[in-house]
Amino acid sequence: MAVARRVLVVGGGFGGLQAALALRRAPVEVTLVDRRNFHLFQPLTYQVATGALGPGEIAYPLRAIFTRNRNVRVLLAEVADFDLDAKQVQLRGVGEVPAPTSLSYDTLIVSGGSRYSYFGHDEWSEHAAEVKSLESALVVRSRLLSAFEAAEEEPDPAKQAAWLTFVVVGAGPTGVEMAGQIGELARDTLRHDFRTIDPRTARILLVETADRVLTSFPPSLSAKAARSLEKLGVTVLTGRSVTGIDHDSVTVDEERISARTVVWAAGVTASSMAARLAELTGAARDRAGRVTVEPDLTLPGHPEVFALGDMVRLHETVLPGVAPVAMQQGRYAARVVRDRLAGRQTPPFHYRDKGNLATIGRNAAVADVKGVKLSGFLAWITWLFVHLFYLVGFQNRILVFIRWAVSFVTRGRGDRIIDERP
Amino acid sequence: MAVARRVLVVGGGFGGLQAALALRRAPVEVTLVDRRNFHLFQPLTYQVATGALGPGEIAYPLRAIFTRNRNVRVLLAEVADFDLDAKQVQLRGVGEVPAPTSLSYDTLIVSGGSRYSYFGHDEWSEHAAEVKSLESALVVRSRLLSAFEAAEEEPDPAKQAAWLTFVVVGAGPTGVEMAGQIGELARDTLRHDFRTIDPRTARILLVETADRVLTSFPPSLSAKAARSLEKLGVTVLTGRSVTGIDHDSVTVDEERISARTVVWAAGVTASSMAARLAELTGAARDRAGRVTVEPDLTLPGHPEVFALGDMVRLHETVLPGVAPVAMQQGRYAARVVRDRLAGRQTPPFHYRDKGNLATIGRNAAVADVKGVKLSGFLAWITWLFVHLFYLVGFQNRILVFIRWAVSFVTRGRGDRIIDERP
Repeated sequence: MAVARRVLVVGGGFGGLQAALALRRAPVEVTLVDRRNFHLFQPLTYQVATGALGPGEIAYPLRAIFTRNRNVRVLLAEVADFDLDAKQVQLRGVGEVPAPTSLSYDTLIVSGGSRYSYFGHDEWSEHAAEVKSLESALVVRSRLLSAFEAAEEEPDPAKQAAWLTFVVVGAGPTGVEMAGQIGELARDTLRHDFRTIDPRTARILLVETADRVLTSFPPSLSAKAARSLEKLGVTVLTGRSVTGIDHDSVTVDEERISARTVVWAAGVTASSMAARLAELTGAARDRAGRVTVEPDLTLPGHPEVFALGDMVRLHETVLPGVAPVAMQQGRYAARVVRDRLAGRQTPPFHYRDKGNLATIGRNAAVADVKGVKLSGFLAWITWLFVHLFYLVGFQNRILVFIRWAVSFVTRGRGDRIIDERP
Repeated sequence: MAVARRVLVVGGGFGGLQAALALRRAPVEVTLVDRRNFHLFQPLTYQVATGALGPGEIAYPLRAIFTRNRNVRVLLAEVADFDLDAKQVQLRGVGEVPAPTSLSYDTLIVSGGSRYSYFGHDEWSEHAAEVKSLESALVVRSRLLSAFEAAEEEPDPAKQAAWLTFVVVGAGPTGVEMAGQIGELARDTLRHDFRTIDPRTARILLVETADRVLTSFPPSLSAKAARSLEKLGVTVLTGRSVTGIDHDSVTVDEERISARTVVWAAGVTASSMAARLAELTGAARDRAGRVTVEPDLTLPGHPEVFALGDMVRLHETVLPGVAPVAMQQGRYAARVVRDRLAGRQTPPFHYRDKGNLATIGRNAAVADVKGVKLSGFLAWITWLFVHLFYLVGFQNRILVFIRWAVSFVTRGRGDRIIDERP
């Protein structure tokens, strides 16, 4: 294979960022394309959604990461299409920012991520909020805080109850964390803030189709997480399915529940880039829209095209859609690029599972680290330091640490802004 | 006069907040109405506009301020109209949050603030950005950062130059601070971040009709501020007027300057509530739309209605539209309310001018404290501690202090997010 000097990385999430970082001292020219100008630390978006952290504290400008690496170029643009035969990516500008119409590459690394899927009910997305992008988290924040404001002023008791009912759909880590945070918001943060309502009377429902929360954890930890949630006032409804969502209600199985705030955390579908890459290469796609990649994360017939993160699956195994998988895959793709330049073989990608963490609230978390099961304070402090460690940016680490320390002592939440709707 | 128990405060800015704070231990029932759920520390919005601070760090939830004061009720609503004869304020809800249609009061304290005025050229506001509300500051931030992104990718040199030209209109404190911050952004923060453009070549123009910047300061400090600005690469154009603003240019006197980013900081006009109160009471209004109040800040014929802040003027004197004036007036109105309950007379309002401060950049500020003129580092450190002291919220103070300390050392700006346009 010819020496591949131009590496084009699509996506500045965990996978793309690690790929670019691992190539910043390699003899290649890296272009990192993202339609946003920052890397988002997505595992903490739910904390932005509940006002515990500010948006800037979990976002870090991509340019600032590579400021000293002259071989890395950051490009604010959106991918319009791939031309794998011509080895080109078609681009379009973001807003008023222009972009070159296409970019040529020798190696392409695509890490496009995923988005929430509404199981064929896209109309539900009009009424449900979600915590995925920074903006969607801010919408959740405004809706949660506005719901308490509305309840305070609503004279009709039935309507007031609907404002004070919060439904979280899906009890994976995001759903569990979200429900726990709403619980803390209602019971601790807002406790004395209203004069008509008592926020502690808020009903928080966590609906999950499976028979337990956090199915990716051992059952004993699921049970502990469920108990922690209930202590925070969350009603855990397992083995139940959402069958309808509209403006002021959620239907769970046959039961219609009046609720004005629904947070969707149920299932994800891969970026549309996965579908396009599958179409172009004949690679298989699974039900979640993920494109199947070779053991070295390349696409069939295209050893120069890598795809990674939660938009792909390996042949036999589905890895969890979490940051460590994408990060390891990003570093792996970069390693293959470097090995090829050096004429070295690279063994197939192998995921090293370092463990699984989820937090429910203050002092409450569960951790499954290589079979060692932790819960309560110890799991919580582990969760805390792991997240601080992986957060990008020295300043962000200090700010987040202070936010958490102050919240821990005061049970307050510093960033309780209701944004003005456009 | 009958004992006045129900005090309605309109506006949670500096004046309204101080009035409510000064009444929280008085034998009255206070309702604080604002259409936002937070108090905004407006003197630092320009720092949000340049990514130096995050939005939540200069905003503090009104409810959190009064959480322990059961006699203070916060109401998220917009004022639709006043009925001074019936002693009622008509309200409307904000977004989906309902509000009572009207509220009765015994005492009304109105602190509605001001907005930017475009001197009869409202069409300019479509193209110019401004730093007033939190959202408008975020728009400025996105536009500033996007301009550098666009310049990086724009192949046409003339268009590229327009993206790299920034015009600030008005050289009062906000305009000076804004221009200085854009200078630092271009010369320090973004210095190594781009591969095609050199951000230091950005043209920053500060246009002012008067013959010097910061006309509210002594001429020697104006000269020092102008020199500091020029060191940061700002071209100060005094004695020049903006005669046109469109999509990609600003006309200064007769000269058309290609520029994609214009920040308006030129003149303010009082809240429309001032006009309405003038109409209802026959009080005079000045050219800036301010309603003229009595020496005790009440409206003529309505000793139970106070108006204050930069929406009012006293008979003979126009006080500057700065936070200390509004704060002192808010506390004064509260004092009159307390004095009346106690059957005491209150002397007329008297403004105690504690001095005037403006910052240009790192190490550069000017201060005029009771005739003592400071500039450079000493003025800057004074500015810094005064702002930290008046900022609301313990956590915000720490976070802002850390942001500033890190920026001082690294010349970075932590909150460089380009928001997604709706």
